[in-house]
Order: sequence, then C-alpha cells, then structure tokens
Amino acid sequence: MVPFRVISKKVVWSSPWYSIRQDELIDSGGNTFVYNVVEKPDTVWILPVTTRHQVVLIRHFRHTVNRWCWEIPAGNQIQGMTLRESAEIELKEEVGGIAQHLECIGEFYAACGMSSENNHLYLATEVTLDIPDPEPAEVIEIHPLPIVDVITMARENQFQSGPSALAIFLCEQRLKKLI
Amino acid sequence: MVPFRVISKKVVWSSPWYSIRQDELIDSGGNTFVYNVVEKPDTVWILPVTTRHQVVLIRHFRHTVNRWCWEIPAGNQIQGMTLRESAEIELKEEVGGIAQHLECIGEFYAACGMSSENNHLYLATEVTLDIPDPEPAEVIEIHPLPIVDVITMARENQFQSGPSALAIFLCEQRLKKLI
Repeated sequence: MVPFRVISKKVVWSSPWYSIRQDELIDSGGNTFVYNVVEKPDTVWILPVTTRHQVVLIRHFRHTVNRWCWEIPAGNQIQGMTLRESAEIELKEEVGGIAQHLECIGEFYAACGMSSENNHLYLATEVTLDIPDPEPAEVIEIHPLPIVDVITMARENQFQSGPSALAIFLCEQRLKKLI
Repeated sequence: MVPFRVISKKVVWSSPWYSIRQDELIDSGGNTFVYNVVEKPDTVWILPVTTRHQVVLIRHFRHTVNRWCWEIPAGNQIQGMTLRESAEIELKEEVGGIAQHLECIGEFYAACGMSSENNHLYLATEVTLDIPDPEPAEVIEIHPLPIVDVITMARENQFQSGPSALAIFLCEQRLKKLI
C-alpha cells in the first residue's frame, strides 16, 4: 500500500546533471506536505578485475568534499544506451578497461531519502587496461591492487565512497574465487 | 594537491532540507567549468541490536522511489547537537530504541559525486524498545530480526538501501560476536 497520494509535481530547479522535482503529497489523514526529489540518470558501478587478478581501484578527486577518495569506476547511464553498454563505456573512459565478462550483480539506492537514482553494480572480469579517456572534471589516478588487499580495505573502512565499499562486499565471494 | 581552484560560489536553490551551491572552478590548464554541490546536514545511521540479540530493521516507505525499503534507522544530524546525541534521538524516534552502548564504527560518503554530506555509522547494543515517535513524512514498520538472517539479507542484496547494507557489512564481525 502506498501511504501518500501525489497532489502535484513541478520541477523547481534544473541543470544539465540533475534537477529538483517538488511534489505536494497528502497522507491518509488528509495532511499535506512537500517532498523534494533529486532526479538524475541511474548510475552504473563497475568492479574491474584484471587478467592478472588485480582489482582496479581509482583515486578520484571529489570537489564536493574537497579530497581524494578511493573508489571503483562509476558513471551515469548514458542516454539511449543500456546499463551494460554504459558500464562498458565508463570502464573504458575512466581506467581504459576492456572486460571479457561483465556480470550484473544487483542494484541499490545510494540516497533514497533524497533521490530517485538507482545504482547498478557490474563485476567486470578478465579486464585488460588500455589508455583511459576521462572527462575534463574527472581527476583520476588508476591503482590495480591485489584482491585480498582490496577486501581488507573495505573491511577496515578505507573507502571514502560508500557505494564502492558496498560493491566489494557484494562481490566478496566471487572475488575470492578469482584469487 | 587540489586539482581545481574555486573562482566563485553561490546558492542557486534552497529548501528547509537541502540547498544547491553552484561553484565555478578552474583547473591547472586554465579551463573553467561549473560544479553543483548538494549541501545538507550530515546523516547518522544506527544499527540497533536488542538485549534479545536481534537487529532492529525498518521497512520505510520512500516517496522518492515509490516503494517500501529495508533499512536501518537514520536521520540528519540535528542542529546544535553532536552526532552521538543525534544518533540517540533518531534511534528513539524511529524505533523507540534506547541503547546501553553506542559505538562509532566509521563514516562514508553516500553520493560524493553530488553531495558534500558525510554519513556516520553507529552500532547500538543492548537496545530496549519503547514507543516510537516518527516524523509525519516517515512511514515506518519495525522488524526485529535474528542477526544471522540480517547478515544473509545483506549478502543476498535484499536491502534496497545501500548505506543500510554497507552498515551490516562494516559491523559484521562485531555482530557475529553478539550472536
């Protein structure tokens, strides 16, 4: 059962990257309230494992928090493309990776108190690394690291990026088979 | 080294819950670009374990995605209060919980491509449950479940809320000692 009914929806702010939709809701008791929803494309996260059995992590400078963050490659679903195609392109752009296998592991919301964005996780295996081609605002270092070290980093909470740490945990059993 | 310099900052949209700050940046090559940052209070996440060794999960109706989500209690840091005090209040409001022990486990960004919000995780143990007092927009069911079942739910990706699943994984070793 849906506990609210939507009375109205309007976009109150927009940018090329995301917009804010302001909804007016009414609950079963007749109380009305406002709920703002950040609308943006879905995100694909790619956990790349190379032919040499290393996980390809990135150090990504994030302007939002003014620091370098340990992460895995990720990006928006590209308009007109499937999630899988978007994952392949993002892997190539951010770390120059080409995967022999790309397995969809699952999905999760990163911030469902604020945004409708869904996040889709792919495990990329037998990855070879070529030359990356990041976007101008993407300042990225590439770090292939042993699988066991990356699992330890997740356990010890060394990822600043929550979705990246979650990706390691969700793939942990599969990663251990690749060691 | 910070790869960008901020030329200007301005708030372009705001609400009682969060605002959008629009920054103009310049990189080392002299290229300028715009970066929008969602500014909101930090979030506290609380993983509650009762005196009966059950994890208190919630089913939370999320308007953003129009569905019920498995989650752990969470809320904004309250103005004028510490993170710990905010965690205590949120635990009480959402599930009526009172903890004998509250341990800070760590922190993570949920969406650092978009927001500066930091997320702080607390493990609450020896929790007793009283009457909850949720806010009007919070539609919540309370589900105390065995620790092993909750760990399995995380492994099988049954949490829609990414930060809630991550919380289980980050506390997994501690949870196993409480079984």
